[in-house]
Amino acid sequence: MPDLPAQLARLNLTLPTPPAAVASYVPAVRVGDLITVSGQLPMRDGKMVATGPVPSATSIESAQDAARQCILNGLAQVGHLIDNDWLRLTRVVRLGVFVCSDAGFDQQHIVANGASDLLFELLGETGRHARAAVGVIALPLAACVEIEMTVQIAGVAHN
Amino acid sequence: MPDLPAQLARLNLTLPTPPAAVASYVPAVRVGDLITVSGQLPMRDGKMVATGPVPSATSIESAQDAARQCILNGLAQVGHLIDNDWLRLTRVVRLGVFVCSDAGFDQQHIVANGASDLLFELLGETGRHARAAVGVIALPLAACVEIEMTVQIAGVAHN
Amino acid sequence: MPDLPAQLARLNLTLPTPPAAVASYVPAVRVGDLITVSGQLPMRDGKMVATGPVPSATSIESAQDAARQCILNGLAQVGHLIDNDWLRLTRVVRLGVFVCSDAGFDQQHIVANGASDLLFELLGETGRHARAAVGVIALPLAACVEIEMTVQIAGVAHN
Repeated sequence: MPDLPAQLARLNLTLPTPPAAVASYVPAVRVGDLITVSGQLPMRDGKMVATGPVPSATSIESAQDAARQCILNGLAQVGHLIDNDWLRLTRVVRLGVFVCSDAGFDQQHIVANGASDLLFELLGETGRHARAAVGVIALPLAACVEIEMTVQIAGVAHN
Repeated sequence: MPDLPAQLARLNLTLPTPPAAVASYVPAVRVGDLITVSGQLPMRDGKMVATGPVPSATSIESAQDAARQCILNGLAQVGHLIDNDWLRLTRVVRLGVFVCSDAGFDQQHIVANGASDLLFELLGETGRHARAAVGVIALPLAACVEIEMTVQIAGVAHN
Repeated sequence: MPDLPAQLARLNLTLPTPPAAVASYVPAVRVGDLITVSGQLPMRDGKMVATGPVPSATSIESAQDAARQCILNGLAQVGHLIDNDWLRLTRVVRLGVFVCSDAGFDQQHIVANGASDLLFELLGETGRHARAAVGVIALPLAACVEIEMTVQIAGVAHN
């Protein structure tokens, strides 16, 4: 299992403080050895990094950057549930990548690679996941991308 | 674990009779302690409660009501698999909320709150779930919203 | 558990050679007794069988055929993970079916039946699954449909 804090530092990245739940749903749920993370939007320092459909309002490159932010936000939620004990993260299982798209845009997989490549850079084989990447007409708060994540963890406390 | 029938009665709600499977897929599948419920449409008494995209054809408020109906329909499917032994329902794990949206509509999370808030009202902490809410261009039978659900159950019979 | 190779032969179908992973994500991940298969596109012999939205660019019938190809491609990925030991396939749990749709198209479930019916033909009760079928504005490489799949397997080697 990789040293996530060291890899984040190497890439000059930091995990945000995970926002607390403010609604009837929660940012992440653990059941057994799986954590399901709610769809993450590309918020950074309290604002959306890019809004509107790709490519007319958001370039592919900006959307890839936004996808990376979604991953950082999702990892922060995982860290919150495992007390940042990253040795417990054994596998990223699945990403659901929803790219706000113009009709005819057919490069959702390239946008999603922003997320996938970052996970591999940070976590190596542990970060290699299954994924579905699709183009949607609109997203909450006009986000250009939303990503949900399922990860496997070890050493689960009984509760 | 909450008393779902009492909570439904308090809110003057009833679960529908779960429609039987009529196709090559089924309304819900149990594997281990998880039940995966198929995407539920907002059918009530055999008809769709609201059709077409939000907000041009369906208001946000109508879409929230439709989202609540999807949850009632999904809970009915869960109840069918657990013989309405609601003490076995230990956690709502995840919702996938697909809102039929006009381009530029950015309040899918508000529509989804109709579903999330109802689950919390009915089930308390047991009902707090992870979710992804996205905007889609179209849905089966022109539904304004479709919701899939994963729940955890206890006391599983061996099979 | 059904004899998948015999059923494929009966229908005059073959599973493709599963493409190797060429990116930071993988075609399928196994965790415990579940395999999560990445979103499959309707590639056949290296080309997309149908592109563009239903029904303006792709007919419902063509999209159903494409959905079947997605299933064959997904089963090939499952087979790769279980060394084509199909007796280990105990249940298809869930399909996520994303149909590239024109606004107003409301027959995503009919397209998805192409996938569901094939699974039932090939696998009988083992192939009966939960599913969500939705309409999306665009898909990678202009595919008309993308399908992700979760299956349960038995007899898992410890690793």
